[in-house]
Order: sequence, then C-alpha cells, then structure tokens
Amino acid sequence: MKISTKQAHFSSPLYLESGRILEPYTIAYETYGELNEEKNNAILVCHALSGSHHAAGIYEGDKKAGWWDGLIGNGKAIDTQRYFVICANVIGGCFGSTGPMSQNYPSQELFRLKFPVITIKDMIRSQMHLLSYLGIYKLKAIIGGSMGGMQALQFGVDYPNLSEHIISLAATYATRPWTIAFNKVAMEAIRRDPRFANGKYAKDAFRQEGLDGLAIGRIAGHISYLSPHSMDKKFGRNYVSNDGLFELFGRYEVERYMEYNTANFSRFFDPLSYLYIIKAINTFNLSRGYDSLHDAISRIKAKTHLISFSSDYLFFPEEMEHIARMMKQNDQDVFYQEIKSDYGHDAFLVEIDRFENTIKEILAN
Amino acid sequence: MKISTKQAHFSSPLYLESGRILEPYTIAYETYGELNEEKNNAILVCHALSGSHHAAGIYEGDKKAGWWDGLIGNGKAIDTQRYFVICANVIGGCFGSTGPMSQNYPSQELFRLKFPVITIKDMIRSQMHLLSYLGIYKLKAIIGGSMGGMQALQFGVDYPNLSEHIISLAATYATRPWTIAFNKVAMEAIRRDPRFANGKYAKDAFRQEGLDGLAIGRIAGHISYLSPHSMDKKFGRNYVSNDGLFELFGRYEVERYMEYNTANFSRFFDPLSYLYIIKAINTFNLSRGYDSLHDAISRIKAKTHLISFSSDYLFFPEEMEHIARMMKQNDQDVFYQEIKSDYGHDAFLVEIDRFENTIKEILAN
Repeated sequence: MKISTKQAHFSSPLYLESGRILEPYTIAYETYGELNEEKNNAILVCHALSGSHHAAGIYEGDKKAGWWDGLIGNGKAIDTQRYFVICANVIGGCFGSTGPMSQNYPSQELFRLKFPVITIKDMIRSQMHLLSYLGIYKLKAIIGGSMGGMQALQFGVDYPNLSEHIISLAATYATRPWTIAFNKVAMEAIRRDPRFANGKYAKDAFRQEGLDGLAIGRIAGHISYLSPHSMDKKFGRNYVSNDGLFELFGRYEVERYMEYNTANFSRFFDPLSYLYIIKAINTFNLSRGYDSLHDAISRIKAKTHLISFSSDYLFFPEEMEHIARMMKQNDQDVFYQEIKSDYGHDAFLVEIDRFENTIKEILAN
Repeated sequence: MKISTKQAHFSSPLYLESGRILEPYTIAYETYGELNEEKNNAILVCHALSGSHHAAGIYEGDKKAGWWDGLIGNGKAIDTQRYFVICANVIGGCFGSTGPMSQNYPSQELFRLKFPVITIKDMIRSQMHLLSYLGIYKLKAIIGGSMGGMQALQFGVDYPNLSEHIISLAATYATRPWTIAFNKVAMEAIRRDPRFANGKYAKDAFRQEGLDGLAIGRIAGHISYLSPHSMDKKFGRNYVSNDGLFELFGRYEVERYMEYNTANFSRFFDPLSYLYIIKAINTFNLSRGYDSLHDAISRIKAKTHLISFSSDYLFFPEEMEHIARMMKQNDQDVFYQEIKSDYGHDAFLVEIDRFENTIKEILAN
C-alpha cells in the first residue's frame, strides 16, 4: 500500500474557539488509496492523543506500522482499494502540523507557551480546511477512537452535512473530572520538570534522554488506558528481578512495562504539544456553543455508530450509551454497541478483530 | 478525651521478612482510654499509607483531629470509655517510628536508601513487640482500612490467637498490578525529582516548599482514592478562573483540589518514607510464606469482618468478597458487607456514618 505523506500550508487565518487566530498554519497528513473521480469515496480518520497522521502502512526502513494499520489497508475493513483514506496530524500536534514548537510568524520565535489554547472544535475546523484544499466536500465516513472519537462526534454536530457515517469509538460527550485528573498528573509533572524550563527547552532537547515529566505523566496515562482486569491478565503479580530470588527485591512486571513504554514515548513526543492536546481533551464538551447537549446532538444527520468497550476505565460505556439513548429518543439514525473486552480503553487500538467486521458492514451498506 | 503520645524504644532486634534486622528501633504510638485490670479491653487500630499514630483527638493548639476521630472517642463506635485504643506509626513511617530518616546505628548517618525493605508482615511484627511492651497479650479487636486493613488481615493470619475480632475495611488479599501502577507514578516522580537527590536531601528540606515529585505522585494517589462518580459529584466540570469568562481559560475544580491537597501533603510527609511504605503495599500478599492463599486464610481464628465500598476503585469489593467466600467455604466465622457509597476508596475515612453502627455492634457482641 502506498503511503503519501504531505503538508498543506494555509495562508488564510484559522479562527480558534478561544477568539485567537493562527495564521499561517500547516497541516501534515497522509493519504492511502485513490480518490475516485466523483470524489465520494473519502474516509477521514482522526487520531488520539498519542497518535499522529501516520495511521497505516510502514515507512521505508521502519519496523512499526501506523497506529491503525490493522484496520486500514488493501482488503482490510477500511479497504484502501475502495476508499481514499485521509488522516491529519491535529493542530497543536508535534508531527508536522502547526503546534507550540512552530514559528510564531512574523516573529522569528517559536510559539512555546504563547501558542493559543486549542480545542477539539479547532482540530476539526482545521481539518475542514484540509478537505477543501483536497477538493473534498462529502465524506463516506469519519472515524476515530478516544480523542479521535471526540473529533468524529464533533464533526457530526458542527458539520451535519459533511459525512454519511460517523463512527466514534471509546469516546464521550464531555470529558469528566476523572479524565481531567489523570491529565493533571501529566500537566504537573511536565510543568514542574526543571528541564522543561517553562517551555523554553531547545527543540529536540529530549530526543536522547526523554523528559522525565512526560514519562511520569504517561504512567498515569497508561493506567487509564488499561483496567484492573487487563493488568491482572497482562502482568499479574509477576516480577522481574536481578537475582530472581525473592519478590521483595524485584521490580514488578507492570513497573517494567510502565518504565519502558513511557521512557520511549518521552523521547519522540514534544511535551508542549502534550500539554496543549490534553488541554483540548479536558475542554471537550459537545454541548459548548449550543443550548444543551440535547441541542448539540440533535444537529447530527449522519448515520452514527457508537462503539464502547466494557472494560474502558477512561471513557466508560455509560457515556457513549448516554449519547445513543438521546439520539434514539430523537429518532436519529444511531447504532450503539458495547464490545466485551478485557483490554480497557486500549481496546480501540489493540482489539481491532473485535470491531473490524462492524466497520466493514457499516461501510458496505 | 485524653491523648497519650509516646515512643517505645526497643533494643532487641526486629527480624524483617527480607532477612535484614533493625536494631535498635523505636515505635511511636498513641493510646486513648484506659487499659482495664484484666488487660482485655484493648483495641489496636492500624493506619493507612498517609495516616499516622494520631488516629483520634485534637492536639492542643491544633485544629485538625486524628484521621479516624469520627469513629474513636468517648461514646463513639470505638468507645474510649470502654476500650483502651492503641494506634502505632508503622515501621518505616515518618512520624516518630524508625524509618529511612532515622539514625543507622552505630553509625552517625541516617539510613536513607540503606533502610531495609519493609513489608506489612514487618509492620505487624513490630506492633506485636509494642503490645508485649505494654503487657497486652490478647486484643478485643484489630481494625484498619486500606493498608490498615491489610495489617488487620495479616494479624489474623500470622497471629491467630491474638485478637477476638479482625475488622478490615477497603483492603485486599494481595495487591494487584492496578494499585502497583498507581504507586509507580509516585515512585518515579519522587525518584526523578532533582531535589530528592537520590535520598540525600536535608532533613526537613521540604517543610516550606514540598517536594514536587511527592505532590505529583500524590495526584495519582488521589485519583485512586476517588472514583469517576465521586468526582462527578464533587467537582463536575466546574472550573475556577481568574477572569470568570470562559471555561477555556479556567482551571477545573478537580485540578485545584489536586493542587491544594498534594502541595499540602508534600510539606509534611517524608518522601523516603513514602517510597518505603508504597513498596510495602506493593509487596502485600497474604499468601506469601504459606502454601497458598487458602492455606494462609485457613489459619484465621478471629471473628473476621470484611467491609468493602461499592465505588472503591483501588481495592475493589470483589477482592474482599474473595476472602469472604474462601472463609465461608472453610466454615470460618466471617461477616462480609459491601457498603453502597459514592466516595470511592476514601469512603473508609469519610463515610464513617455508613459503618460506625456495624463496628459498634461487632464490639458489643
């Protein structure tokens, strides 16, 4: 499968929900498959907090595939032989789209903490501009999980005529304090890390030795992506030890997992970007700008598919169910499914085999 | 009610589960009420991670009462007019018992990271010595919540003839990776804080400005002590703002709560002690040293009362239920109650009115 990685540069202003303006700005994106002549086979994929526009395929010389490669590709549920798939790095991100480490034109400085607050609405507005740039005015589907699922829902509310299908996995209608509290660990750990230097660190300062604050915040993140049961299954009380003698002297398997994954992450993800994106997650509230949640949700015209995971401890099934119930009462076209899973919130990334058929059927109809 | 705060100094060795020895060592403790002549009216109260031997009453000139003052006192569920109540600071603690910031005799140095690993078994063994020192060989009850509940259970297993009643709240039979992961945030945040200086900080270095690492770790702790629902009730999506204009610029109520509580905590709790105590919680496993959990639990002779809270997201009700089921199958004298609560793990501290009658009845029979 051919991966086409590009950047779109916009000289027109991006009006942000906060009242501030980004001008100019850039969106990095990838596409897979071919846009047909009618331009009606496009599917927009939205990424989550730790994702990027690299949703599928393997870069030359790389080992790891894109974050939803199991779902997107030739003959897969999102079949790139039939569909033209687009995935954009969110505004505020650190993989090529304009973010806090971008130049604050016309000055020569980087934005850093002068970067404006970004919201989920801003993320989707900038993707609307990307779609126009690509000459696409109608989508077959918008799909995403977690923060990607928030974007899919927000698209449905803000641009009701854009997409035939909205598919949102492991998301919610408004971020609860539970999630804000998990994000708070990262915020404080990053903010208080002396090497973060109030955002004045050198670009790429953490490529070799990641920022501790981000790694620490990420441990809290990983807790919320798993669940008590998934951890029992994955790690139990197993330990790794230097001497193998006695559990008292060992590090637990779960501790090693946290160390390894978070150290890795803190070397490639920019901490300022992380702060801005978790803020966007915290402020997510479908009803903002509308009279009520009911008012917001009533605007949705797309066929809406809500998928939750039974063991999701970050965005609980009841949250997606709440949206489904509201839409049913409104006689809107909604399908809700709670998938039994032991993998926690991460299920939307790792248990693709549990929902790929659902996605396939949605797109086939 | 009279509070008697004391220290007991032991010159005999304390043999630790790790094989190491503490000699000499000190246990700080408080007592409330009077020991009767028969010495059969004593109740031992065991404290949790962030607690101390100051379980009840208010020190002169102080405003805040002991951590279980609602339960312990004249005419209260644990009635100090009838019972002699003892609460000891755990070994490894930082409120007067020997811990990592104590002198490593015969050297003039403090232990710091040379302090031996401490376990729940070690905590209770040292309390056994305190009881002998007080001339008490039989207890009316041993009671505790969370890590205190672990101690109560371990007493029941290791010293089956010591107490008539074991009352364990919001605890478990073995710490699951879910809890170890929450503790991992604190471990890494403390360990990597430059001011922690690998444990070589000056005594009382953090009285004015608490250690960031401890405060950050404590945010993760507070998440685990609450629950999604308790946070919804307590904070919702309310925000505190400098200008009151728009939620985007505000800090959420839940964020302020985390900042305030953790900053405070990091000024009075010693970070090395914190590391040692969470390690003790991580390594807690009732079955260690026995053939199996069943073998360990079968040893209990006391009337055992297990109380869990429906919304406990740290030690889930199913964990206490597991012990109860095993004991019932063994025809052991066990009572299990799951209390409906919206307060999460913290319920054992804040919803005393939900279980004080149960405690009163247990002690009356």
